Amino acid sequence: MLLKSPLVGNPTFTSPLSIRESSFVEDNIYIPFNIEAKEGRLTTIEDNLFFEKAGPRKLIYFEPNKCAVGIVTCGGICPGLNNVIRSLVVELWFNYGIRRILGFRYGFAGINPENQIPTTELDPEVVDEIHDEGGTILGTSRGPQDPQKIVDYLKQLGVNILFCIGGDGTHRGAYEIYKETRKRNIPISIIGIPKTIDNDILYISRSFGFNTAVEEARKVLISAHIEAKSVRYGLGLVKLMGRDSGFVACYSALASQLANFVIIPEVPVILNGENGFLKWLENRLLTREHALVIVAEGAGANWFNEKDMKKDASGNTIHPDPGKFLKDIILNYFENKNIHIQMKYFDPSYIIRSVPANADDAIFCDSLARNAVHAGFSGKTGITIGFINNEFVHIPMDMVIKGRKQVDPTGELWRSVLASTGQPEYISSPL
Amino acid sequence: MLLKSPLVGNPTFTSPLSIRESSFVEDNIYIPFNIEAKEGRLTTIEDNLFFEKAGPRKLIYFEPNKCAVGIVTCGGICPGLNNVIRSLVVELWFNYGIRRILGFRYGFAGINPENQIPTTELDPEVVDEIHDEGGTILGTSRGPQDPQKIVDYLKQLGVNILFCIGGDGTHRGAYEIYKETRKRNIPISIIGIPKTIDNDILYISRSFGFNTAVEEARKVLISAHIEAKSVRYGLGLVKLMGRDSGFVACYSALASQLANFVIIPEVPVILNGENGFLKWLENRLLTREHALVIVAEGAGANWFNEKDMKKDASGNTIHPDPGKFLKDIILNYFENKNIHIQMKYFDPSYIIRSVPANADDAIFCDSLARNAVHAGFSGKTGITIGFINNEFVHIPMDMVIKGRKQVDPTGELWRSVLASTGQPEYISSPL
Amino acid sequence: MLLKSPLVGNPTFTSPLSIRESSFVEDNIYIPFNIEAKEGRLTTIEDNLFFEKAGPRKLIYFEPNKCAVGIVTCGGICPGLNNVIRSLVVELWFNYGIRRILGFRYGFAGINPENQIPTTELDPEVVDEIHDEGGTILGTSRGPQDPQKIVDYLKQLGVNILFCIGGDGTHRGAYEIYKETRKRNIPISIIGIPKTIDNDILYISRSFGFNTAVEEARKVLISAHIEAKSVRYGLGLVKLMGRDSGFVACYSALASQLANFVIIPEVPVILNGENGFLKWLENRLLTREHALVIVAEGAGANWFNEKDMKKDASGNTIHPDPGKFLKDIILNYFENKNIHIQMKYFDPSYIIRSVPANADDAIFCDSLARNAVHAGFSGKTGITIGFINNEFVHIPMDMVIKGRKQVDPTGELWRSVLASTGQPEYISSPL
Amino acid sequence: MLLKSPLVGNPTFTSPLSIRESSFVEDNIYIPFNIEAKEGRLTTIEDNLFFEKAGPRKLIYFEPNKCAVGIVTCGGICPGLNNVIRSLVVELWFNYGIRRILGFRYGFAGINPENQIPTTELDPEVVDEIHDEGGTILGTSRGPQDPQKIVDYLKQLGVNILFCIGGDGTHRGAYEIYKETRKRNIPISIIGIPKTIDNDILYISRSFGFNTAVEEARKVLISAHIEAKSVRYGLGLVKLMGRDSGFVACYSALASQLANFVIIPEVPVILNGENGFLKWLENRLLTREHALVIVAEGAGANWFNEKDMKKDASGNTIHPDPGKFLKDIILNYFENKNIHIQMKYFDPSYIIRSVPANADDAIFCDSLARNAVHAGFSGKTGITIGFINNEFVHIPMDMVIKGRKQVDPTGELWRSVLASTGQPEYISSPL
Repeated sequence: MLLKSPLVGNPTFTSPLSIRESSFVEDNIYIPFNIEAKEGRLTTIEDNLFFEKAGPRKLIYFEPNKCAVGIVTCGGICPGLNNVIRSLVVELWFNYGIRRILGFRYGFAGINPENQIPTTELDPEVVDEIHDEGGTILGTSRGPQDPQKIVDYLKQLGVNILFCIGGDGTHRGAYEIYKETRKRNIPISIIGIPKTIDNDILYISRSFGFNTAVEEARKVLISAHIEAKSVRYGLGLVKLMGRDSGFVACYSALASQLANFVIIPEVPVILNGENGFLKWLENRLLTREHALVIVAEGAGANWFNEKDMKKDASGNTIHPDPGKFLKDIILNYFENKNIHIQMKYFDPSYIIRSVPANADDAIFCDSLARNAVHAGFSGKTGITIGFINNEFVHIPMDMVIKGRKQVDPTGELWRSVLASTGQPEYISSPL
Repeated sequence: MLLKSPLVGNPTFTSPLSIRESSFVEDNIYIPFNIEAKEGRLTTIEDNLFFEKAGPRKLIYFEPNKCAVGIVTCGGICPGLNNVIRSLVVELWFNYGIRRILGFRYGFAGINPENQIPTTELDPEVVDEIHDEGGTILGTSRGPQDPQKIVDYLKQLGVNILFCIGGDGTHRGAYEIYKETRKRNIPISIIGIPKTIDNDILYISRSFGFNTAVEEARKVLISAHIEAKSVRYGLGLVKLMGRDSGFVACYSALASQLANFVIIPEVPVILNGENGFLKWLENRLLTREHALVIVAEGAGANWFNEKDMKKDASGNTIHPDPGKFLKDIILNYFENKNIHIQMKYFDPSYIIRSVPANADDAIFCDSLARNAVHAGFSGKTGITIGFINNEFVHIPMDMVIKGRKQVDPTGELWRSVLASTGQPEYISSPL
Repeated sequence: MLLKSPLVGNPTFTSPLSIRESSFVEDNIYIPFNIEAKEGRLTTIEDNLFFEKAGPRKLIYFEPNKCAVGIVTCGGICPGLNNVIRSLVVELWFNYGIRRILGFRYGFAGINPENQIPTTELDPEVVDEIHDEGGTILGTSRGPQDPQKIVDYLKQLGVNILFCIGGDGTHRGAYEIYKETRKRNIPISIIGIPKTIDNDILYISRSFGFNTAVEEARKVLISAHIEAKSVRYGLGLVKLMGRDSGFVACYSALASQLANFVIIPEVPVILNGENGFLKWLENRLLTREHALVIVAEGAGANWFNEKDMKKDASGNTIHPDPGKFLKDIILNYFENKNIHIQMKYFDPSYIIRSVPANADDAIFCDSLARNAVHAGFSGKTGITIGFINNEFVHIPMDMVIKGRKQVDPTGELWRSVLASTGQPEYISSPL
Repeated sequence: MLLKSPLVGNPTFTSPLSIRESSFVEDNIYIPFNIEAKEGRLTTIEDNLFFEKAGPRKLIYFEPNKCAVGIVTCGGICPGLNNVIRSLVVELWFNYGIRRILGFRYGFAGINPENQIPTTELDPEVVDEIHDEGGTILGTSRGPQDPQKIVDYLKQLGVNILFCIGGDGTHRGAYEIYKETRKRNIPISIIGIPKTIDNDILYISRSFGFNTAVEEARKVLISAHIEAKSVRYGLGLVKLMGRDSGFVACYSALASQLANFVIIPEVPVILNGENGFLKWLENRLLTREHALVIVAEGAGANWFNEKDMKKDASGNTIHPDPGKFLKDIILNYFENKNIHIQMKYFDPSYIIRSVPANADDAIFCDSLARNAVHAGFSGKTGITIGFINNEFVHIPMDMVIKGRKQVDPTGELWRSVLASTGQPEYISSPL
């Protein structure tokens, strides 16, 4: 049986004026994924996806004063994690009246009692200033844990809603927990909050922390540009995050307008030959005396053999480091040509992800977290909070874990990158 | 007669592979304004607006090698103006092959020959590093000029496309120029690029520089919070930009999560009485010993008489300064109660708008400018480049000048502000 | 009787190697104030001042395990206050083994029991991250309190050393407390730590937070420059802190190299007449079309009558606001001449002092605080920690409260400002 | 024959009032190197060094209107290079009236005509905004060039003063050029301006750009700390610049107060054994669950064999990378112990040196450059501009190239580092 939301009658959401009713979202409101219309008509429902709009519901599923809630952060850190934790806690505490909020420490490991990691009690005072700092106060780890043990533990602790903040590995884990709760018919709501520094979660146009990371990556590009420009035949080579998707590389190139060549996983680049990258680089250096090249960490798959690939703790495929590979290839090429280039290699790695959220990400995290709370209380489960066409929506977890979002080589983003760098597209299109 | 775009065959946009064809946008693609769907169906066309999608067209209207282009910036400065100028120039130069790009100086005044302000020739070298700096290298001014004289001058200079970067005053001026060209049937394309630090242009979800301004405003809020917290009964009172709309106030409150009360033009606040703001402030200060209050520069219309209002050079209504008014009212209130509060008043004004664009705004400006070039060359005129549901579109100028976008007191943004400040809504609902 | 310092035998300070002995400072080491030598000879002792060198002593006065220590912050906030508090606490705790450290709240008011303000217990955990934030966690206030009551209270609490962080008002108050302890022969050590955003404490070449404030002031100057440059006849007028001394104005002018005229209290400026400032400004605006003028808040005494002066809570003389005065004078002048200048007025005020300490100030605060602890434990009292010729020293409190340090109009700093602005000196030399 | 300085009679330096005379510095004023006095007496001249005080002289050696000046930047880039270039140019142009200022490009290579690198004409307009950007607009390179060819070329170009901005390699080169001019009795003044990101030039207490680099290094330490704290047994290992001297490592450790262990070239660290670093690290990680370790790039000489050392283009000894070495040693150690630490390795390298100068460095660069101009015009040669005890002085070049300044393991700086990290000193004192 559904209950009246404490937000109905809460001055934050309602007023004596009935107009405030409109602040609640009805369950039958959807946001289409594809919004391009031909001649004033949206493409029909058959070839479109519609997602439930997120937001506070008038009726809720869990009884606030008997409710306990858990929060867990998994995977690599990302700007805004503490903002999300903080807004979850203050929304739960002040608007839904929850007084038992458990922070599980060090990722899913903290929800498996075998690891004997104590939980942390969270309240508004504990989280008051945490958003000033990067990282996650809960700690994080990679890799899954036994969903049965997790569900047993959640039940034992009386947790009704579990917020899982993490990337696609985390969502795969959360989906297993969700399935376990369904199988055993235990009413625990499993809500995902997507986190990825690479901005590569399927369907989701923007993930928190990405803007901040691009801001930091831009600073590194400026440094590399300055180093390259300050010497003769100076080459700044910058490796940026992006295991499967080149979003950080592309956006920071656009933000700086300084890069002369961007190499991403989605667009294979040929190194050798008259139309190859190395020849292009030679021309650039000899005519302009300096150059700036970005390579995403997952780029260059066509330069390696299948057998060189490895897997990390979360099961992600790891390529050999294309930055170091390219560095050596380039140095060798110019040494053979007796051209004395001066290479400055930058691998900022964690530097771009460990800062606090910038203002825009902070705002985004706040909305994301509050919508996650609304979703959990309205009885949704097995969903993650998406952001599509500027609207927050609910996306079934099994949809987002089916693949990774990538840069479309025929789309606007890559077109903008080509326009900004002036790099020849044909080098990048060997297929 | 339409011509083939130089982008067809330009390696930036096309390749030997036909797949690149998809990079061009067809003229019959539209973006709906309202994208909420009920039960999987979009609201019907009758109660929705559809805007032409922006982007490069295969066919263009002006012959690049005979074409001259003008750029003008008007109104107050805004982070990203130089980014927009730069991306206009490099797109025009490298992708469309334009070699005559005129920068008109000091706003519309620079296109009226009576003012004898020389124009500036723009090329990629001139604009190479201008995006590192705030402001506009072209200079700016407020207020309209005689559209007849402007059109005469544009014709005399051989200008085919005029890019007008500015707010709603500028768009009103640009619309007059557009009408003059239509009346005299002169083929000059008038393209608007919306600029407003207040983010208040109708239909447009986001204007450039706004993110950056919010970032700066957040810094001021942090300062005010620190000042208030460091003394007993400390009150930080911060006046932020927002003549008609409280977006800067709302977003910076959310970004900082520090404000305890936000006063915006859209939501009248009662000062006196048991349920009034001053009584609320007294309770806050006596219990928590410090407080942070934001007031938008256009707030408090209900505190003043009609006769106190003035108009500025662009015709905008100017209210008396609600910041200073509130400062005096508060000081007086607590003096009468013999409570020794310590007020720190902040009026950052221009500080938040004169910085360079942050990474996110820089990327946005780049797309905005390039889409403006595509629009101009495809023969569009009398339109401005909008951003709706995360898509760039063409909006007829006469639509955007019909009013101002405001914070919806029943919408998600204001709901988030209330949740973040915890301020009582009833104070704000006197109607 | 003096005791052996816990630092002797503390691995931080001593090692099995006798060479570490040199880390302690002997009591007979002095630093001369004037270090200019003529022909290889220092000016003789008669016309020089020598200050005791600060640093850890081998023998100490107070028994650490019976010792309680108090910390108080007074006056306006300043970047680095929390760094000083933190380093006091960690030096006291880890190196001297003190376990009772009292934070008095809200300035001297917190040491007068009549105000019934509870003290705060400080330890390394409480202060661990406070240096990330501006302001003071202890709170502050202006104005003195009855020294008898303070000494009674300190005695009652068992406090042996009191660290007073503040400006010259604070040092006057601390000196009265010191005299009271001497009069009653109570062994409480009173140690001053000089704080002033204006960098105007006598004898002391640098005070903490000043570098950070100059960094922030530079940002405001850049904003004002951008605003001025972006319009025709644009004038940026910036009021900066500096009640008696123009150091913030001078240093930020040098840091930015953007100001065209700097007006400080030490160098009177004539406004009218052929050689006056207004005529100079007219020439500048007409020829260069923009200008940037800085006025220190204490400048322009020669523009006002004696009767306009007031006093603040700490007894400092307050002049009428020269910024607003100059703003009106300038607007009036150009209106009369029918020259349409565009004035942008900036009053950053607290914005430049409420930020966290930059790296350089953070390092400085750490040394300052640790030297204060060494001084207190070695039994010094009635002294403040000075910084002279790049060395930390002990300065008797009665010396620093005799006046204020000012910019020497014939010295290197003012010469550099003149060279950087190009402003005519004769305007500034009416005497 | 000496001439009257154009500064005499220049309103910047003189006024109708004779008091301004004091702005000039007499040639018989010296600054002692050691300023510690025992019992009020300076140590006698026998055991002290005295350096000529820098500043404008009333009499000058070169005739401004016949004079040409050259500027060259060498070695690695450093924040503030463009500030120094800019202030040299504006001081030469506006105060000494020089109209021929040559910028030699790409280091000493640009003064050897064999390399056929064209010079750049510098004037106030060219340098107006260069200080907003890191790097050097002149370009730089490493390594010496034939002094005979350089002197021939300078003579041929009519250059009277050459400003050489660089580190000790550059000063060695400049000293050879100076000796060549002396040998051939050619009146060209060779003036050094010391530049080193490591702050390791002999006698000089502070070199420009160092403060800025420490600010950037602090950011990296914060990142590393956040990464380490966000996982269980997290270890942040940060390699910072400092080939022979650990100043960057020490100062950034103090600025952040976050490091738990600092390893510098001056203090050998034992890795193994019960008292070794690895055992300490194990205890730290097991008890506190995270740690932050800094290693300077030149540290760990005792870990390597002599044969592993190399030399770079400027003749500096290059050690194997102690960061990577330590990383592997640590990973191996904990793997053997079956403790699952999570190492995050940071090598910010060029990132900390390619940013623009902060406010404090900007001010310092301005004074440094103007004093260099004064020195050159007063006929000094073979000297560099030092900064000692807060005063600018002239130091003979042959003195500064005799060695490198290092952190004194018994001095105040290292004592502060030990106090801040709490690291055991005995690990660091194997001698």
